[in-house]
Amino acid sequence: MVQPIFWIVPVASIIALVLAWYFYNGMKKESEGTDLMKKIAGHVRKGAMSYLKQQYKIVGIVFACLVVLFGVMAYFNLQNPWVPIAFLTGGFFSGLAGFLGMKTATYASARTANAARESLNRGLRVAFRSGAVMGLVVVGLGLLDISFWYVLLNYVKTDLDGTSKLCFITTTMLTFGMGASTQALFARVGGGIYTKAADVGADLVGKVEAGIPEDDPRNPATIADNVGDNVGDVAGMGADLYESYCGSILATAALGAAAYMTSGDVDMQFKAVVAPMLIAAVGIILSIIGIFAVKTNENASMKNLLNSLAVGTNLSSALIVAATFGILYWLGIANWVNLSLAVVVGLLVGIIIGRATEYYTSQSYKPTQRLSKSGETGPATVIISGIGLGMVSTAIPVISVVLGIILSYGLAAQWNMADVSHGLYGIGIAAVGMLSTLGITLATDAYGPIADNAGGNAEMAGLGKEVRRRTDALDSLGNTTAATGKGFAIGSAALTGLALLASYIEEIRIGLERLGTQFIQLGTTIDPNGNEIAITKALHEATFTDFMNYYHVDLMNPMVLSGMFIGAMMAFLFCGLTMNAVGRAAAHMVDEVRRQFREIKGILTGEGEPDYARCVQISTKGAQREMVFPSILAIIAPIVTGLIFGVPGVIGLLIGGLSAGFVLAVFMANAGGAWDNAKKYVEEGNFGGKGSDVHKATVVGDTVGDPFKDTSGPSLNILIKLMSMVAIVMAGLTVTWSLL
Amino acid sequence: MVQPIFWIVPVASIIALVLAWYFYNGMKKESEGTDLMKKIAGHVRKGAMSYLKQQYKIVGIVFACLVVLFGVMAYFNLQNPWVPIAFLTGGFFSGLAGFLGMKTATYASARTANAARESLNRGLRVAFRSGAVMGLVVVGLGLLDISFWYVLLNYVKTDLDGTSKLCFITTTMLTFGMGASTQALFARVGGGIYTKAADVGADLVGKVEAGIPEDDPRNPATIADNVGDNVGDVAGMGADLYESYCGSILATAALGAAAYMTSGDVDMQFKAVVAPMLIAAVGIILSIIGIFAVKTNENASMKNLLNSLAVGTNLSSALIVAATFGILYWLGIANWVNLSLAVVVGLLVGIIIGRATEYYTSQSYKPTQRLSKSGETGPATVIISGIGLGMVSTAIPVISVVLGIILSYGLAAQWNMADVSHGLYGIGIAAVGMLSTLGITLATDAYGPIADNAGGNAEMAGLGKEVRRRTDALDSLGNTTAATGKGFAIGSAALTGLALLASYIEEIRIGLERLGTQFIQLGTTIDPNGNEIAITKALHEATFTDFMNYYHVDLMNPMVLSGMFIGAMMAFLFCGLTMNAVGRAAAHMVDEVRRQFREIKGILTGEGEPDYARCVQISTKGAQREMVFPSILAIIAPIVTGLIFGVPGVIGLLIGGLSAGFVLAVFMANAGGAWDNAKKYVEEGNFGGKGSDVHKATVVGDTVGDPFKDTSGPSLNILIKLMSMVAIVMAGLTVTWSLL
Repeated sequence: MVQPIFWIVPVASIIALVLAWYFYNGMKKESEGTDLMKKIAGHVRKGAMSYLKQQYKIVGIVFACLVVLFGVMAYFNLQNPWVPIAFLTGGFFSGLAGFLGMKTATYASARTANAARESLNRGLRVAFRSGAVMGLVVVGLGLLDISFWYVLLNYVKTDLDGTSKLCFITTTMLTFGMGASTQALFARVGGGIYTKAADVGADLVGKVEAGIPEDDPRNPATIADNVGDNVGDVAGMGADLYESYCGSILATAALGAAAYMTSGDVDMQFKAVVAPMLIAAVGIILSIIGIFAVKTNENASMKNLLNSLAVGTNLSSALIVAATFGILYWLGIANWVNLSLAVVVGLLVGIIIGRATEYYTSQSYKPTQRLSKSGETGPATVIISGIGLGMVSTAIPVISVVLGIILSYGLAAQWNMADVSHGLYGIGIAAVGMLSTLGITLATDAYGPIADNAGGNAEMAGLGKEVRRRTDALDSLGNTTAATGKGFAIGSAALTGLALLASYIEEIRIGLERLGTQFIQLGTTIDPNGNEIAITKALHEATFTDFMNYYHVDLMNPMVLSGMFIGAMMAFLFCGLTMNAVGRAAAHMVDEVRRQFREIKGILTGEGEPDYARCVQISTKGAQREMVFPSILAIIAPIVTGLIFGVPGVIGLLIGGLSAGFVLAVFMANAGGAWDNAKKYVEEGNFGGKGSDVHKATVVGDTVGDPFKDTSGPSLNILIKLMSMVAIVMAGLTVTWSLL
Repeated sequence: MVQPIFWIVPVASIIALVLAWYFYNGMKKESEGTDLMKKIAGHVRKGAMSYLKQQYKIVGIVFACLVVLFGVMAYFNLQNPWVPIAFLTGGFFSGLAGFLGMKTATYASARTANAARESLNRGLRVAFRSGAVMGLVVVGLGLLDISFWYVLLNYVKTDLDGTSKLCFITTTMLTFGMGASTQALFARVGGGIYTKAADVGADLVGKVEAGIPEDDPRNPATIADNVGDNVGDVAGMGADLYESYCGSILATAALGAAAYMTSGDVDMQFKAVVAPMLIAAVGIILSIIGIFAVKTNENASMKNLLNSLAVGTNLSSALIVAATFGILYWLGIANWVNLSLAVVVGLLVGIIIGRATEYYTSQSYKPTQRLSKSGETGPATVIISGIGLGMVSTAIPVISVVLGIILSYGLAAQWNMADVSHGLYGIGIAAVGMLSTLGITLATDAYGPIADNAGGNAEMAGLGKEVRRRTDALDSLGNTTAATGKGFAIGSAALTGLALLASYIEEIRIGLERLGTQFIQLGTTIDPNGNEIAITKALHEATFTDFMNYYHVDLMNPMVLSGMFIGAMMAFLFCGLTMNAVGRAAAHMVDEVRRQFREIKGILTGEGEPDYARCVQISTKGAQREMVFPSILAIIAPIVTGLIFGVPGVIGLLIGGLSAGFVLAVFMANAGGAWDNAKKYVEEGNFGGKGSDVHKATVVGDTVGDPFKDTSGPSLNILIKLMSMVAIVMAGLTVTWSLL
């Protein structure tokens, strides 16, 4: 049943995992440095693992409840029985990707610091290869899970056949996307709250009140801060991008199956289903080539380093463009030239968003420099200007995504804009193209927190200014590449969100089929005798547009409009809840650090030892307590909307959440990034430098920006997709309920 | 042609204007106090008038360009020739309402301060009656302009007749709404930038750096700050609410004409057109009764004062409910009970939003008190918590608006949810109901800035603590009632936005008619011989849903999706531009105030006189320069979207802008209000009181909140509607262009 060409996919995934194992072992062989360095790294590792254990416990409970719910739904024939299991594997692999990435990062930080004692280049090598472990684990596990389910479901006996069978396979696989999304949301929200509570708490008392530098061992929240980098920026990001990666491939596969369902062409349908998987598989191989291309000589300057990273990512991107044309031609899919061009469109949109992000958030450009200058009139103008900057910065990403939508849709539909199913498939293919080089972009992204932690380790272990300067240089390098990575993550979320919307309609079709519906009514007309007769269409022949007509999903339907308002509100409400969560958890941390400074004698002179463990515990408890409500809300909102407002309401909710959420996410990420770098720009000696009033004002901006860019902003990306995934899995319930 | 019952409308509007004149004269008879008080008031008055003159000059240029454009469009038969003139009168009356309100306010402030020297109650009376001038001028001019055009167009000779004629009348009248919106946007943006640049500048240097109190005569920006209250909070608000008021009535009238067009029932169509006007006219009379009901005895406590204001507004609301049932019964409109209930729904939604606003922004409740407490950990946590609070506070307003949409739609459509035209008419009627008591709610709203300015006058004239305490009490009273007023403004913007969307479709129909289109194709079917035939419908019989089908305005159309992304982005971009504008203008002000403190000797000891005029000039120039780009952008966006993405793109833009813009507006208004009152709560002696670190932290929050609540937030309300109005007026161009 499974055609031979498909086997490229699992093979590529296994290559990625083997190589990740190789890089991991290479890193482990490096020396971890002095005893003090080992001890500090051990503390961080222990804290991170103990937090992750707690988080998985809570997520486990949520998963157990959902699996029971899906089981009940399967029992009542509202879903197929594979759903609960697929859901579980998605959650498991997403968590595993985060866990392995974090394990690597916590082993790598002291080793990076130790390598940086030798040279900048050695430090880069250790950090980058460790980042590559995460990149390869995410794409490897993602494609492995996809391959496993694809093969399994192909050999499962059902009464379905032909094009229906492939639709069954792809929509069932989407459930595993929901598992990954759920896991990712908890990881991002929980990790984000953890890391920012520790960071904000450490900064507010340590930097601002006590005037001690960042990562100073006298600060009781320092270990918690470093643990936070690992659980938020590494484990959280890993789970997040695992979800993005699988989500885009699965949604596109489902669209491919749908696009050729009505034509009954099983062969072409198969090709459309495996095309996104093949592009991703080839992307893995080309990412690996890119990773090996990252090399510098021993005397490399900062600029050389940046160049060598750029060589790796650019090489991968250029190769994937060429390879896509080849693989789609070889596959023999119809309209292969245009589909390959859609991949190019996706890559370009990602790159433009990345560049725009860099322009608005890097201290090398005017906007952030002006933001630093606004510190001359105090913290209030820093906040006003930062919010202004963030809001204005949404224009370019939105316009590029819009162009990406129109172009990829038009290309795939061969400019027949009424051909919705092929057009949407093109949007999905663009999203897959955007994420195809994730192996290497994630490597350059994930090594940032490793370098950051290496800096923390160097500071606490007293390795001296030179080492700290090198780790700072590595960290700063990571910030630049991370901008591009963020562009890809956020752009792909918007496109994948659209693709998932189409999958929702597909799932509605299946829900109606399950209820025995054979025809849907699309309107009425007058027959030659003057009688009104219904215009109907066979369910399996109905197009997306037909379903829109059937359910009156137009923009004058009050249910659609209501759903849209609720969707836009959900994005804001979710951000507000996570912002408040960080505020509350940070306040606890501040109280604790103040208490320790007050009660533990000699802590500031370095004679007394702070109680690090207590701060770790506070962050852990805070994150655990605060992550549950917003996450549950994201799961419940589409279900309740479906029960009250029906299918039109759900579609409104998803679109409203997608459009407002995407813009809000860009705003928060860019405002946060700009505040961070505006502070760095002052610290580089501008406008009075460290310790000046301008610096203090920009520190306020940076602190506000922390939850913007690391908690609420990135969680929104997942929220957008999770709401769609929940809607898809619950479609059977919505359909049945509306007919009751 | 015009039925007798209609004449109630102009009569009510003339009563309102006569009464406004009476209150104005009563206020003018009061004494303006000491020579110093007169001098200060004169400065403020002069500054305000000179700014308004400058603003009208720039707006005049924009209007001239637009009138030429409309003239050209009329010449090429893309619009009817009445459009340019209607556009001009809308702009003129909107500006006039703001101008008269401001004139009154600048005369009233010193008189209020002087009256407050006698007693709190005398102060309330002068301030409230002066606020009532503005309330009555806005509703009076609004209905007068509407009456004028309604009568004129009824007697105009056209080749139209029957139901078409009424559609022609109502859609032409909508153009005057666009004039009012354009004027209002400039007034809000320009005035908002002016007032906040002065306010932020005065606070940052005066309060924070020099440590002198608010409104201190030693602060060079004090006069500019007081001028700002008048041009932003009075003239801006007047133009804004004039636009809201007329917009909701005109959009509903247009919907009424459309709802009965296809049935050919001219009589019922007439009733549906005048119903919103009649409700508004009766609302004027009942507002006047409410205004006279505001009375207290000489020894009234603060609570008594609040109660007496509440008596006035509650009385008006209760009476309007009763009167609506009466007037709609008397009018004999079909389904009158349900339509009256829709008015009740509108009023209730307004009240719920107002209450929610009060809960989230008043220092009497937990959220704002907790926000004050977050100042204990510095300004950064104040900002984080304030943003969190604002975002969470969007939930209740959105849910009430959604319930309002569903209920008013369902009531008017008699629960046949597919009956879009009557359903949308119900939404419009709810918006009219919400704004029907604007005469009194605006009076309670407008007297706030008068009391604020009276406080400024008292401070600068050295009238002593007791008088200042009384003016502060009046100001604080105004803040509470303003919360309700804001709820009505923001809720009605959302509902009116939806009603305008329907008017856009109407205008598309007219555009097609003008091009000679007689039938639109809705799909295809198979005839008994197996041939595919087109399903068509006569243009004048096509419903809203038919137009949605004809233009494929469903949520799978990439043009619609692109429009939605752009719409959501527009809301953020517009806010970002106005935030940046305030930041830049405030920075200039800060530089100037610092320069004066440095260069003018003895300024802080009271021996040297600050150069007030220079600060007034800086704010004026800043506002002028900065208001143009965002305002022009709002006008251009729907035109460009229409040319590129056609009708589906424009509808996407409007809906995306409406849903994201509404939520964003609530967020910004509430965050800003909460920051303001969190600072006041600390100043009342909590968490260390004035001068403490917590106070300094909350002052940062207040400063950030200023442009949130007084510039960007309120401008968004207008943006939402202006984009719809522009789309409506430009519909002819869009239709013709798409067919080229």
